Amino acid sequence: MIRYKCICSYDGVSYHGFQVQEGTKTIQGEIERVLEVVFKDKITIHASGRTDKGVHAINQVFHFDANIEIKPTNLRRAINSRLEKDIYLREITTVSDDFHSRHSAKSKEYHYLIDFGEYNPLNKDYRYYYSHSKFDKEKFKEAFNVYIGEHDFRSFTKASEKENTIRTIYSIEFEEKDTLLVIKIRGNGFLHNQIRILVAMALEVGMSKISSNDLKTILEAKNRAFAPKLAPAMGLYLYKVEY
Amino acid sequence: MIRYKCICSYDGVSYHGFQVQEGTKTIQGEIERVLEVVFKDKITIHASGRTDKGVHAINQVFHFDANIEIKPTNLRRAINSRLEKDIYLREITTVSDDFHSRHSAKSKEYHYLIDFGEYNPLNKDYRYYYSHSKFDKEKFKEAFNVYIGEHDFRSFTKASEKENTIRTIYSIEFEEKDTLLVIKIRGNGFLHNQIRILVAMALEVGMSKISSNDLKTILEAKNRAFAPKLAPAMGLYLYKVEY
Repeated sequence: MIRYKCICSYDGVSYHGFQVQEGTKTIQGEIERVLEVVFKDKITIHASGRTDKGVHAINQVFHFDANIEIKPTNLRRAINSRLEKDIYLREITTVSDDFHSRHSAKSKEYHYLIDFGEYNPLNKDYRYYYSHSKFDKEKFKEAFNVYIGEHDFRSFTKASEKENTIRTIYSIEFEEKDTLLVIKIRGNGFLHNQIRILVAMALEVGMSKISSNDLKTILEAKNRAFAPKLAPAMGLYLYKVEY
Repeated sequence: MIRYKCICSYDGVSYHGFQVQEGTKTIQGEIERVLEVVFKDKITIHASGRTDKGVHAINQVFHFDANIEIKPTNLRRAINSRLEKDIYLREITTVSDDFHSRHSAKSKEYHYLIDFGEYNPLNKDYRYYYSHSKFDKEKFKEAFNVYIGEHDFRSFTKASEKENTIRTIYSIEFEEKDTLLVIKIRGNGFLHNQIRILVAMALEVGMSKISSNDLKTILEAKNRAFAPKLAPAMGLYLYKVEY
């Protein structure tokens, strides 16, 4: 049994998210379809985590096991030539059995792209266009300080979430280019919808609908009802997984 | 009768080009659909020129006549709110009757985007990925000098072209960012497929399949059979029309 570790990029626009779902087009489904052709065997892949419908990835990581050893450069070529053009395998290596794309992950970095400038239809699926005359960008950026550190992020995930909701956000950095703002969030892991809710609630601070202090109260409330917003999927990118 | 001049951007991916064609989705068809809703009247728009299937525009210009005068800012909002999200009206002004988006145009600028780096599925519809170990980028860029000036570009358009094929290219400039090369071509007008053929034949020079001198011979041959290549549509952008 050989374990392969893969790093892939994808454009999430045409997919119903990463995880296989009966009757829908998914990233996992498309990759497994190709692996079955290449290995002539049904293969299940295991990703570092799911991404939702419309969310993109620059460096998503997954692993899978196969009975046949194929030279990684040849395997990569064989897979890429058969994959739909909106999914691409950047790297493939063989790893030891104790590597697990999800369990072995030490940190993850997501990027969220907001453009405060004029709408450009060429970026419609790749940035969140957000333009309001009353918006205060500095307040918005400051709001993210509330999120840094170890917190119970129950307010910032699906209300139905059952598992442990304590996570640590290591850093939040900003990169600006013209009207585009890239928000870079690194943490030990993220809950379902967490980043999209964190961004959406920080936007409420930028619009002066709530203060950064209110945001602390919301965090402490541990109740999604206090954070009812969700930023759109198209601005979100899984940027990196570190091991 | 009021004449309106409009500047629009569009993502050409999902359209069969600009010009209306029975039974297909076109940019013109989509804009005219919305104008009919807004003006409650059948309106025909006249663009600075057509763009082909998959070609994008940053600043395409068109005009149309209507019986009703609507304040441009209100009209722009009314149109944009009804248009598909991959077409966007940047600007709308009223102009005098002697303005014609095609006949009054003094020059046009097109951009062609080639990426010599690793494939990124997020740009699949927006750049031409071109990667060959033998490719000589400097030779490729130099080849464009052959095109500058007034020439009969018959070799670089559809063989069936009947009209006058003499055009002037004013300038060709390059902008590089990492592995991306933007080729900026300004001229008094362009023939059908001209830029995509000019780029494709310059790539042949970069690959040392022909020399820049051969390119001169091809230009002088005035025969498309000498220039049988065509660069893909997704790299091409109508960047600007000047009046």
